[in-house]
Amino acid sequence: MKDLTRVGLRWDPCGHAGLTGPLLALADDCDLAFRRLADRWHATEERHPSAMPASALATHLRSFPHQATFAAALDPADANLGEFADGPVTAPNGTVALTRIAPVTTVLTPAACYHVYAGHAREHLSEARYVSTRNTCFRRESRYEPLLRQWSFAMREIVCLGTPAEADAFLAQARAAVDYFALLIDVPLDWTPATDPFFRPHTNPGYLLQRIQPSKHEALYGGSLALGSVNLHHDHFGTAFGITRDGAPATTACVAFGVERWLYALTDRHGSDPDGWPDLLAAANQVVDR
Amino acid sequence: MKDLTRVGLRWDPCGHAGLTGPLLALADDCDLAFRRLADRWHATEERHPSAMPASALATHLRSFPHQATFAAALDPADANLGEFADGPVTAPNGTVALTRIAPVTTVLTPAACYHVYAGHAREHLSEARYVSTRNTCFRRESRYEPLLRQWSFAMREIVCLGTPAEADAFLAQARAAVDYFALLIDVPLDWTPATDPFFRPHTNPGYLLQRIQPSKHEALYGGSLALGSVNLHHDHFGTAFGITRDGAPATTACVAFGVERWLYALTDRHGSDPDGWPDLLAAANQVVDR
Repeated sequence: MKDLTRVGLRWDPCGHAGLTGPLLALADDCDLAFRRLADRWHATEERHPSAMPASALATHLRSFPHQATFAAALDPADANLGEFADGPVTAPNGTVALTRIAPVTTVLTPAACYHVYAGHAREHLSEARYVSTRNTCFRRESRYEPLLRQWSFAMREIVCLGTPAEADAFLAQARAAVDYFALLIDVPLDWTPATDPFFRPHTNPGYLLQRIQPSKHEALYGGSLALGSVNLHHDHFGTAFGITRDGAPATTACVAFGVERWLYALTDRHGSDPDGWPDLLAAANQVVDR
Repeated sequence: MKDLTRVGLRWDPCGHAGLTGPLLALADDCDLAFRRLADRWHATEERHPSAMPASALATHLRSFPHQATFAAALDPADANLGEFADGPVTAPNGTVALTRIAPVTTVLTPAACYHVYAGHAREHLSEARYVSTRNTCFRRESRYEPLLRQWSFAMREIVCLGTPAEADAFLAQARAAVDYFALLIDVPLDWTPATDPFFRPHTNPGYLLQRIQPSKHEALYGGSLALGSVNLHHDHFGTAFGITRDGAPATTACVAFGVERWLYALTDRHGSDPDGWPDLLAAANQVVDR
């Protein structure tokens, strides 16, 4: 961490990282490399807001209430705003001295790909669609650690909307692409079946299904740090958002990369001296041109 | 708006815009052009979180409580999360059926440059520092309109921390750079003194000061749409964050660009056909190389 401050890490202990200097350049290269990998599927680039209507994510919120972060504003009644402005605003311990808040309708993006399903709602696809997107995601945790576990972090995803066979092929290709990329930049990875961090997992059908029929595999660095994952959602989002492929609910799948964790792995493996860092874009080019 | 959907605008009526296709490319070019303008001052690039501790922004929150958006999470007590998960999660009108929320400590970034002052707190500068940064900013409004007035939007800023004379020179150079850039891309602008949208302006010393001694000038397109602004903060942030320049509190100044509003102006002026759009990066190069 001390070393990384020297190359541009700025840590806000509330759980957010700022970047400047060499580490910012590495983060940008990292994302460019993932974006280049998306060319493997001629993915369309999309840019989404960092917030979305909670009503589109009810199932998610029910499964992950402990991680959800909402966008809250004060009730705009003049007297309510006045009471806030005339009060202490923040307490000595840093807590905001909120007055009445307005009804909350908006959740901060928990995963980059949710916007893709919502954005393609009610589309009828006659061929597989591939989308690449990056977003700032928010997940509340009980503790935070720079680059490893943050309240907000950058997630790059490549998403496939297609038939079950197209989604399967995409996931196999994505794993192979990530493996080859990791080999070229010398960041050793191991794939392992994984489950999402459900609230009350043992009574959640989503968790139980993931245990019986693994739909999530994580790429672990150093045995325990997930740098990314491949995920098969079957027709969950296709059905929920009315997206069809050849008349049936679309099957969706995604590969997701946690950018800050790649920064951790790259600097852990290759040191904090930028001269020792691999050329990420060259590696991604080699993967796609293979 | 209909035309812009065709070139990649995706509007979430909660006040957020998504971008894809030609409009996404234009937004990226726009930001690259502003970033290129920052080379005029050899500005250092910084990337900041989209959230910050509210305690660092108490004065701002007191002046703009109506615009503030907070990051709120549920109280993590198991029973509280369970009550939420077992409840309706969202009501038919889209409101989240929140249970008890945890103490709020975090505000979503209201202006990109605030992170710069906080990030350089207690620094003693022996020469002027120039920083360029872009962030997603959140400002709650009473109504939203695509590209024109959004709850979240992209803001690019170039910030100067220096002596009063350095800040003055920077602002004059910034205005000239924006003027020349706007001329080259044929987006006519007029500068006008402006005030920030203070809560209860007539009793706010900040507003009264801005009226007496204009410290904010906006670049208006079409007579009323502010595409950007130049702002002189005197030693407000230098004093608040303990930043000094030659032993005295630093004077700070910034030029800010609202990226989505530039998209509006560019497409309003040059049409929605990408073939008619100007080469923004070439124009920025010409400004910097002059």
